[in-house]
Amino acid sequence: MKQEQVLLAHGDGGQLTHQLVQELFLRYFNFPALQALTDAALLPPPAGRLAVTTDSFVVQPLFFPGGDIGTLAVAGTVNDLAVSGAKPMYLTAGFILEEGLLLVDLERVVASMAETARDAGVAIVAGDTKVVERGRGDGLYINTAGIGVVLPDLDGEGASLDGSRIGEGDAVLISGTLGDHGLTIMAQRAGIAFDTPVQSDCAPLSSLIAALQENCLGQVKWMRDPTRGGVATTLKEIAEVTAKDIVIDEQALPVRDAVADGAAILGLDPLYLANEGKVLVIVAPEARDAALAALQAHPLGREAACIGHVSGGSGQVYLKTPLGGHRILNRLMGESLPRIC
Amino acid sequence: MKQEQVLLAHGDGGQLTHQLVQELFLRYFNFPALQALTDAALLPPPAGRLAVTTDSFVVQPLFFPGGDIGTLAVAGTVNDLAVSGAKPMYLTAGFILEEGLLLVDLERVVASMAETARDAGVAIVAGDTKVVERGRGDGLYINTAGIGVVLPDLDGEGASLDGSRIGEGDAVLISGTLGDHGLTIMAQRAGIAFDTPVQSDCAPLSSLIAALQENCLGQVKWMRDPTRGGVATTLKEIAEVTAKDIVIDEQALPVRDAVADGAAILGLDPLYLANEGKVLVIVAPEARDAALAALQAHPLGREAACIGHVSGGSGQVYLKTPLGGHRILNRLMGESLPRIC
Repeated sequence: MKQEQVLLAHGDGGQLTHQLVQELFLRYFNFPALQALTDAALLPPPAGRLAVTTDSFVVQPLFFPGGDIGTLAVAGTVNDLAVSGAKPMYLTAGFILEEGLLLVDLERVVASMAETARDAGVAIVAGDTKVVERGRGDGLYINTAGIGVVLPDLDGEGASLDGSRIGEGDAVLISGTLGDHGLTIMAQRAGIAFDTPVQSDCAPLSSLIAALQENCLGQVKWMRDPTRGGVATTLKEIAEVTAKDIVIDEQALPVRDAVADGAAILGLDPLYLANEGKVLVIVAPEARDAALAALQAHPLGREAACIGHVSGGSGQVYLKTPLGGHRILNRLMGESLPRIC
Repeated sequence: MKQEQVLLAHGDGGQLTHQLVQELFLRYFNFPALQALTDAALLPPPAGRLAVTTDSFVVQPLFFPGGDIGTLAVAGTVNDLAVSGAKPMYLTAGFILEEGLLLVDLERVVASMAETARDAGVAIVAGDTKVVERGRGDGLYINTAGIGVVLPDLDGEGASLDGSRIGEGDAVLISGTLGDHGLTIMAQRAGIAFDTPVQSDCAPLSSLIAALQENCLGQVKWMRDPTRGGVATTLKEIAEVTAKDIVIDEQALPVRDAVADGAAILGLDPLYLANEGKVLVIVAPEARDAALAALQAHPLGREAACIGHVSGGSGQVYLKTPLGGHRILNRLMGESLPRIC
C-alpha cells in the first residue's frame, strides 16, 4: 500500500477501503466466503445447536508481552464459545481504526488474528472496517462475534452447562495460574518492569476444553473463562445464579511468584485480575481427578488445580485463608482495571 | 440507575457493568438466551445454510432525522443478510461507550435497537459493553454481527446471488430514492436546514426483500444495499466482478427534490451518497415488471424504479445523461463522506 498510516478515506467504502481490504485483510484472512466479498458469508448448515457470542476489545496498550489486541480478539471469543460447550467454528471481525494508525501496526494485529484463528481451528468469515478521526479512538478497537456448534458427542447428550446441575460437594477447578494477563497489562501501563518478566496468558482454549469434555463426557457441570473481574467476580456470579456458596482455599490458588509480587507492588489482588487463557470448571466430586488429569495433560493446563468446592448456602463466595479465617469475595467494584481486554 | 453518565467502571466487568446490563440492556433486549447471561447464547439448529455478516457503526451525529445509531446498527446488518438471500434471525450487539456518555442517550439508542429488531423480526441474542476514557471515543460505537438462514423456499433451489448469473440485457432496479441517508447526515453536520426537511431512509429491508423473492422465485440474480459509497460504488463493484458493463439512465434515477437541492448546495452527488433503506436488484428482463411490481407494492418500495441495464463490456458503469452523453462512474474516491454509518 502506498500510505503509511490509516486515512479517513480508508473507511468511506470507496477506493481506499477496497485497497485496504484487498491488500491487507484478504492476504491474511483467506476463507473463501470472505474472499468473495459479498454482504454476508454463506456457510453450510451446522450439525447441531448454535452457540453465538460477541466481544469488543479495547485493550491498551495494543501490544504487550504474550500477545496483542489481535490475539486477544480471537482467543476471547473462541473461549466464550468453548466454555459454553460448543466447538468454535466461525468468527466475524469488525475494526474501528483511528486516523493515523500505522499500517504496519494494523498488519501485525491482523497477522496475530490469523495465527490465533489457525491455532483455534476457526475461520474468520466476515469483516468490516470503519475509520474515525484522530482523537476519537485509540489506535484500533476490534469486535469479534463467534459462532460455534454444540456437537452431540461433546455435550454428553445435551447436559446443560448453565449451572443448574451444580450441587453441594462439587469441585471447583482452574486450568492454571491466576492473573497473568491482568498483571501484565497493568504493569505495562504503569511502566514497571519485573526481574522475572510476566506475560499475558492469552490463548484459545478450544483444544484444552475439548480434551476435558472427551475425558469427562457429560460430567462437566459448568465452565467459564474468568476474564474481566477475575476469578472472584466470575465465581460470585455463578454462586448467585445457583444460590449456593463456593468456598475457595487460598493456599490452593496457583499464582506465579512474579504475578504475586507485581500485584502486591501495584496494590492489586490476583483474584480480581483478568485471565485470558484460563477456564474455571465445576465437576461432580467423583469426576474431579479425571478432570484434573485431563487438564494437566494438555500444554495449556499443566498447572491446573482444584481450588475449592461448592457448599450449601445463599450465593456467597468465601476465601479460606491459611490461618483458618474466611473472607467474603464480592464482585469487582470501582474502576481499578479499565481497558484490560 | 444512580449515575447519569457512563463511568469507566461500567466497563470493568464488575458491579457497575452488572447493573448496566440488568437495568438497561436486559430491559429492552428480552431474548431468553440473552437474559441467561451465559458466555454464549445457545440456539436451535438452523434449517438451512447460514449467512453471517458484521458491521460497526460510528455515525456522527448519533441522532438524526429519521433514526439514530441504534436504528442504523440493526437495519444495516439485517439488510446485509436480506440482500444475501437469507432470512435474518439473530444479531449480536457490541457497545464501545465513551466515559461521560449520558445514560439517557444510551437508553434512547437501545430502545431504537429493540424497536428496529422487532420490526425486522430478529432477536438480539448476545451483547458486550466496553468503556473507554473521555477523548478515546465519540459517545458510542456499536458493532452488530448478524446470522441468517437461507431458506429453501426463498432461494429458488439455491440459485446463487453472487452475480455469476448476471447477463446482458438484465434489468437494474432500485427500491426507492437515492441519497436520503447520506444527505441527511451531511446536512446535519454542516448545520444546514432545508425548506423541505430531509430524513434518513434507514429501515430494515427484510420484509421488502422477502416479498420480492416470493414473487420472483429464483429470478433475482443479485441484490445489494448501496450504503457507503452509494449506488455508483456498489454498481462499479458488481460490474467489475461480472466483467460486464452497467448502463444507468440519469433521468430514471429517483431522487427527492430536497435531496437533489441539498446535494447541489453541499457539492455532493446523490449517486455517491449512502442509502440505508434501499436495495439494488438485478433481474432477467422477463422478470423486470414482476419484480418492480413486487417492490412497489411494499411500503418501503413505493418509489422503486428500473434505472438501467447490463450490457456487454469490461466492467464499466456508464451514466447516460439526458443529452445523450455517457459519463463513466468509478468508485467513490477521497474522503468526502466519513462516518456516515
